[in-house]
Formats: sequence, structure tokens, C-alpha cells
Amino acid sequence: MKDIGLIGLGVMGRNLSLNIGNKGFSVAVFNMTSQKTKDFIENEVGKQDITGYYDIKSFVESLKKPRKILLMVKAGKPVDSVIEKLIPYLDEGDLIMDGGNTYYRDTTRRINELNEKKILYLGIGISGGEEGALNGPSLMPGGSKKAYDLVKDILIKIAAETESGPCCTYIGNDSAGHFVKMIHNGIEYGIMQAMSETYDILGKVLKLSADEIGDIFEKWNEGELNSFLMEISYKIMRHKDEETGKPTVELILDKAGQKGTGKWTVQTSIDMGIPAVSLNAALEGRVLSYFKEERLNLSKKVAKDYPKDLYDKDKIIGDLENSLLFSNLILFSQGLWVMSEGSKVNNFDIDISEVLKIWKGGCIIRSKMLDFMRAVIDEDKENVNLLNNKRVLEFLMTRLDSIKYITNIARNFYIPTLVHNSALDYFFSMIEGNLPANFIQAQRDFFGAHTYNRIDKGGIIFHTKWE
Amino acid sequence: MKDIGLIGLGVMGRNLSLNIGNKGFSVAVFNMTSQKTKDFIENEVGKQDITGYYDIKSFVESLKKPRKILLMVKAGKPVDSVIEKLIPYLDEGDLIMDGGNTYYRDTTRRINELNEKKILYLGIGISGGEEGALNGPSLMPGGSKKAYDLVKDILIKIAAETESGPCCTYIGNDSAGHFVKMIHNGIEYGIMQAMSETYDILGKVLKLSADEIGDIFEKWNEGELNSFLMEISYKIMRHKDEETGKPTVELILDKAGQKGTGKWTVQTSIDMGIPAVSLNAALEGRVLSYFKEERLNLSKKVAKDYPKDLYDKDKIIGDLENSLLFSNLILFSQGLWVMSEGSKVNNFDIDISEVLKIWKGGCIIRSKMLDFMRAVIDEDKENVNLLNNKRVLEFLMTRLDSIKYITNIARNFYIPTLVHNSALDYFFSMIEGNLPANFIQAQRDFFGAHTYNRIDKGGIIFHTKWE
Repeated sequence: MKDIGLIGLGVMGRNLSLNIGNKGFSVAVFNMTSQKTKDFIENEVGKQDITGYYDIKSFVESLKKPRKILLMVKAGKPVDSVIEKLIPYLDEGDLIMDGGNTYYRDTTRRINELNEKKILYLGIGISGGEEGALNGPSLMPGGSKKAYDLVKDILIKIAAETESGPCCTYIGNDSAGHFVKMIHNGIEYGIMQAMSETYDILGKVLKLSADEIGDIFEKWNEGELNSFLMEISYKIMRHKDEETGKPTVELILDKAGQKGTGKWTVQTSIDMGIPAVSLNAALEGRVLSYFKEERLNLSKKVAKDYPKDLYDKDKIIGDLENSLLFSNLILFSQGLWVMSEGSKVNNFDIDISEVLKIWKGGCIIRSKMLDFMRAVIDEDKENVNLLNNKRVLEFLMTRLDSIKYITNIARNFYIPTLVHNSALDYFFSMIEGNLPANFIQAQRDFFGAHTYNRIDKGGIIFHTKWE
Repeated sequence: MKDIGLIGLGVMGRNLSLNIGNKGFSVAVFNMTSQKTKDFIENEVGKQDITGYYDIKSFVESLKKPRKILLMVKAGKPVDSVIEKLIPYLDEGDLIMDGGNTYYRDTTRRINELNEKKILYLGIGISGGEEGALNGPSLMPGGSKKAYDLVKDILIKIAAETESGPCCTYIGNDSAGHFVKMIHNGIEYGIMQAMSETYDILGKVLKLSADEIGDIFEKWNEGELNSFLMEISYKIMRHKDEETGKPTVELILDKAGQKGTGKWTVQTSIDMGIPAVSLNAALEGRVLSYFKEERLNLSKKVAKDYPKDLYDKDKIIGDLENSLLFSNLILFSQGLWVMSEGSKVNNFDIDISEVLKIWKGGCIIRSKMLDFMRAVIDEDKENVNLLNNKRVLEFLMTRLDSIKYITNIARNFYIPTLVHNSALDYFFSMIEGNLPANFIQAQRDFFGAHTYNRIDKGGIIFHTKWE
């Protein structure tokens, strides 16, 4: 009898099976297309105790009770469809886990539906890509504690390890796991967009080659910007296309794909009224990239007048490092604010310090900065907005001149810097006691009798006959 | 027997009843709270043929067949609830109209539900606020042509009039009317935010008084920025609080409310993958304004170091005018792009030139600029993006230095300018043939094997083994 079953043998599913097998657990695997199962067992499975099954019934029957089944199928209808196929063979107390990038509200629905059948359910956020799945991902399981306790041992063993411990913790009730993974991806969109803006400036303002940019990224990776994404970035910059000898990155089409999670983070923040301004800007950056033909066409119709000034290369590189640090901290702070609010609204009971701990290894946004933020949150667990912390404010204030300088230069070179600009505008808004929204309220009261409050008479609603 | 019935006697409903009555039609009115009906009939109705009813049955029975009933109740559940109460008394071929700010998908659902009962339904976008409702709003009716033809005469007579004709036209199939009204409001959010940024700079950089700002707005209103919003803005600036003698606008709390439509426009654009970047930024501006206490608190913790340079006041005022023109045109262009895409995706069959025509009078975003955009669209009806037009590109390019200068000054004074910055970044992105999304695609391929396309080998999908 097998310790755990896994359905869905895409690259993530295959690597997770191998990871679980490598840790000494026995695994039953199943895939809708049998050939994939066959190929996997024949070509990839080695000494691990992994057995392929070719029908759902014998797959389920091969599992120790209570059964534990991890779904690694595409988010959306495929998950419902697999659950439907599994149900006839399951018993009360069995556990289904969804390890995909599922919209958290879908997970809530499934938890409730399966609860009626007394079947346990966990929504597990998994980050780390192919390599993480094989050697240790960051795992964000959410659902009932009872369900988590059934698989805790397996999850903790397959997760990445850092000096702070395994990168797996019980995230919280209900769909807390998928909610946190969604925000993880929203922040990931943000950081990647901010890095791409930096890359753009290094190339278009300083005219650096991919190799030269790679050297800068490698150096930054040794400092405060140390992160998984910075590490892969210098490797990307140095990679050459075999056929042409050119830097591979320069041959790639500049149309960035966007999957559900980045979009859902933004839409959720808007629904909750939390200003995730820069996560939002990053999403828009990807949307804009989609219109390649329109952009190429328009670019030919305008004459750009570039500055002739000589710029201090070392100053720009230093300011770019500071600007990226500024943007990244703002991106994290916005994401964590959405997480706090979501936890409150949905009763997820998320411990953000623990989330930052399990993001330290395995996941895509693992970075040195996480330690700083974790220390900040541990100082005051009630603080939903990192900016309220003195050290965070100082961190940002000391880098303000850099990001002002960088965004100004970008502007002179016609370079869009959506995330950097939005991070700055977000910061300016948050440190501004008096925004001009009083004027907007006056307009709304003028044309729509929407009423307003006054600064000198709290709690009373006013309407003015303006004409 | 009455020509038309109206349910919901809030300020919009009362003024619309009077407007319909003033045009010689007889009106039956009903409100859930009877006292409101009584007060309205006694205090506001004059020579108009308007009769109040105190139960739904006699209200419906007072109407000529096929009956025409306009709902002016709060969007959401109240609309469903009133429809449910009406249905038992209606006959096949009767018509219900919803004149509220309803989410367009709700209108689609109601059209389909009522279609099964052979009851006609129109979703009518109504813009113009209190004053427009009374003297002539802009009307955006959508649904079946058959339904529209039943009330066309009444709608056209109560709508605003401009030199281009009445501000009412059949918008299109299904929920096209509410969809267009939603976008109207999204653009309205954008323009109001852009104006508030301008107001902020005039006050915080040039230290102008409300009266001085009012003079500038009045002057601008005589030029290219001529619009209803600019007209009310100079009146707002001059209005004094009776008690204190201070400018009223300066006593208003800077927390801007946001209702559904502005948010839905942004969420819809994100779902459709259309970059309504500045409409989005305007929404975020309102969201940020909400956190007044946090902002006040943080503002006390930072020391701002303002520039000591002397600025040329006239140059700044001139550049602000140009920057606002730049931003407004970008805001409209993004809104119209969402409209085109929405029309295509939902088979609304919207004629955008006609929409711009009926926005010329009555509505909140009526402005001189509409004529320019209408001419641009009439040149090429297939063009979904105004920027593709040569005159639009020129309009923006000649104002580029102004908005670069203004946003740079704002930055030096710690003033957030979300809409201005996003308009500029949007423009830079759209005129850029090569965005750095190639780097994002490389990262995604590195950590997630997401694959990519190449610039030199179209149509083929690539994956690189980066390490």
C-alpha cells in the first residue's frame, strides 16, 4: 500500500513525485493520458518506490487509509473533473490536496462541497518551479488543521530547508494556502517587472551589453538585492544562442504571458480597497507588452529626441540598485497588506511572519530582504503596513533621491517605468497628510449631491448648494 | 392612463419624473416608502401630469399598454426585488427599464430572465447628476431594438440637446447601455483624478489660493480644456464656507468615495487584457485617499526637503494645461479601447462615434475634446486605439515636454501624480517597439519552463536549458 497518490504528470507533478519518492515515501501516480504515466515510470523513475496506475479505481485502492491524494492538474475545470472521478472510490476521512495555482475562492467552494461528503481537502500553494518541485519547493498548505496533520510529515520532508527551518507551515483556515500563493505570485510579477525596467535602463541609457548587465546583476546578487530572481538573471544575461552566438535574451519576443494569479491579486486588492498600486502597475506592464505589433507600428511614427548629456555610469548603476531595493520593498509591503486584509476578511488567521519564513527557501521570490521584513513584522504583529515601521521608512527615505533620479532619466529616454513610478507615487501618497481628494469630493457633491465630510467637524455629513 | 411609470423617488428619480412631465408625458410614480411619494407630489410636482401610487398593483394598472416602467432604484439587489414585485402584474410585451448604475453583467442576466417571460428590458445608462436628470441628461439605452423603439420618443425628448442633436441614441444589444455608462464613469474617475493632481500642484508648488486656482480654471475653460467638470471646478474654488469664510473646498475631508462603476471598468479592462493603465491609476488614487489616518500619521514621521529653486509661474501654469490635455486624451483613448473590445467580445455592436455624440451634452464628461475624438474615429471606424491616428499622436507629442516637466516638478515636491505618470508611461510603452518583456519571458522560461517566442523565428515555441 502506498503512502500517497499523485494525479497529473506534467513537469511539476513528475518532479514532486520524484521528490516524495526520494524522501522514502511510496507513491502511486496516475495521469489521464496513460502514455505519460508509462513514459515517466520507464524513463524518469529510478530507485524510488513509485508505481503507475492506469485506472482511477486501482490507483485509489493502492493507497493506505486514510488516503492522501495530491492533484497536480491545471487549475479550473480539470480540478473539478478529477475530484468528480475520485469521489465514488473514496471513503470518509480521505484527503484530497490541490497543488495547482487555483483561484482561492474555488478552493473555498471545493472545501465546502467535500466537507458535506466528509472528505478532507487542502489547497496547497507550491512555489519553486521545476527545480523546486524536485529538490524542495516552498509549500503553503491551507484548510483544516486536521487535514494538514494527516500529511504534515510528508510535506515538511519534501519542502526546501533554510537555516530557519523547513519551508512549509500550516498557513491557515479555508483557502488560506491558495490565497497566500496568489499574493506570492502578485509580488513575483511586481519584482520581475521592476527588474525588467532596470534592465531596460541599463541597456537603453548606458548602452550596456547583456554580458555587462550580467556582471552588474551578479555583483548586486552579492549584496542587499540577493535573491533567486537576481541569481537566475545574471545567468540569463550570459546565455548565448547556439546558432547565432547572440545573447539569448535579446532574441526573445517581448510579449510577456500572464496567468491567473497576478491578475487575481490585483482584482482582489481592488475589491478589498487595499492600494496594491505597484502590483497593479506590474500587471499592466505585462498587458502592454502584449500589443507588440501596435507598438512597433507606433514606434515608427514618432521621432524621439534623446538627451545628449553625458551621464555618470557608476552613479546610475548605484542609483538603479537603490531604486530596485526601494521598489521591491514597496511591492512586498503592498502584497503583505493585501495578505493581512484578506486574512481578516476571510478569517484565514495567517501568521505573516511564518509566511515570510517559508518563503525563504524554494520559492521564486526568496530573497535576502525577507529577513528584514520578518524582523519588522515580529516587532509588531498588528502592523498591517510595513511603512509604519521606522526602519522601513528610513530604508525608503535614504533611497528616495536615487529613485527620483532614475525615474527622471528614464523619462528623458522615453523608457516606461511603471513599477518604479507607481512605487514612488504610492510612497508619496502614504506620507502625505493632505491629498487633493477634497477637490474630488467637492466635484462629486456638486454634480451628484454625494455629500462629504469636513476636516473640522468629524462625523457629520455635509452637502453644499454650490451654485 | 399614464404614458410611463417610474419607481424610486431618490433625487435622480424625482428629477427625471419632472423632466418627463415637463415634456408633456403623463407619469405614474411609486416609491417603496410611501411618505416620499406623498412629499414629492405635494412639494415638488407642479403643473406636470404626475400621479403618485401607493401600491404596485394600482401603479401598474394606471399605465398604457404596452406598459413602460423605469426603475430608478439602487443598483444590485433592490433592482431584482422590484422586478420580482412587478412581474405578477405585467403582461407580455411590457417593458422594464433600469436607469441605475448597474453592473452590465447583471443587466444581461435580467434581460435573459425576463425574455423567458416575454417581458422587454432595457438597461439605460443615465449621466448628468441631479441637474442633468431635471433638464436633460445623456441617455445610453441598451437592449433589444424592439424595446428601444417603444420608448424612443420619450427618451429623446427628455435628453439633453446639442448642436449635434439629442444626447440619446440606441447604444446596442444586450447590456451595451450599462457597459458604456460604466466606461463613462471610469473615464470620469480618471479626469477628476487628473484635475485633482493639477489642483495639488497649483497649491503646493505655486502656493496659489483657491480663488487664484479658480481664475486659472475659468481661463482654461475658455480654451481646449473646456468641459463641464472644468466649469464646476472654478465655481467650487470660489465657494466660501458661510461660517468661517474660508474656501469650502479646503474644509472638505480628503477621502474620496468610490462606487461600483469606476472599479468595474478597471476590473473589466484587466479581464479583457486591455491596458487601461490610467483609469486604473485613478481608481488607486481614490483607494489611497481612504487611508487618511495612516497618511497623517506617516506624514509626521518624515522630513521633506523641498526644492529652493525659483519656478517660472507662467511656464508651470501653461505646462499644467498641456499636461492635463495630454492626460485627458490618454484617459479617453484607454476608455474607448475598452469600449471597442467590450463591444466585440459581447457582440454589443456599439457605434463609438455615436457614443461620443451623445456624451456632448448632459453628461459629466462632456467636453470640447469630444469633437476632436469623434472626428478621429469617423476617419477610421476600425481603429480601436486613438493613438493610431496621426493627429492624436501629434497632439500628444507636442505636449510631451510639458508633462515630463510637470511630473518632474511634482516629484521634487513629494506630490503623487498617479494619473499623469501613468499616462506618460502608457504613452512611452505604446510608442516603444522593444519593451523589456523579453527579459521577463526569459525568467519565466528559466524557473517555470514557460517557453517563449523569438523575434527572428515567428510562430515557433522555444525552451532553453539555461543552466
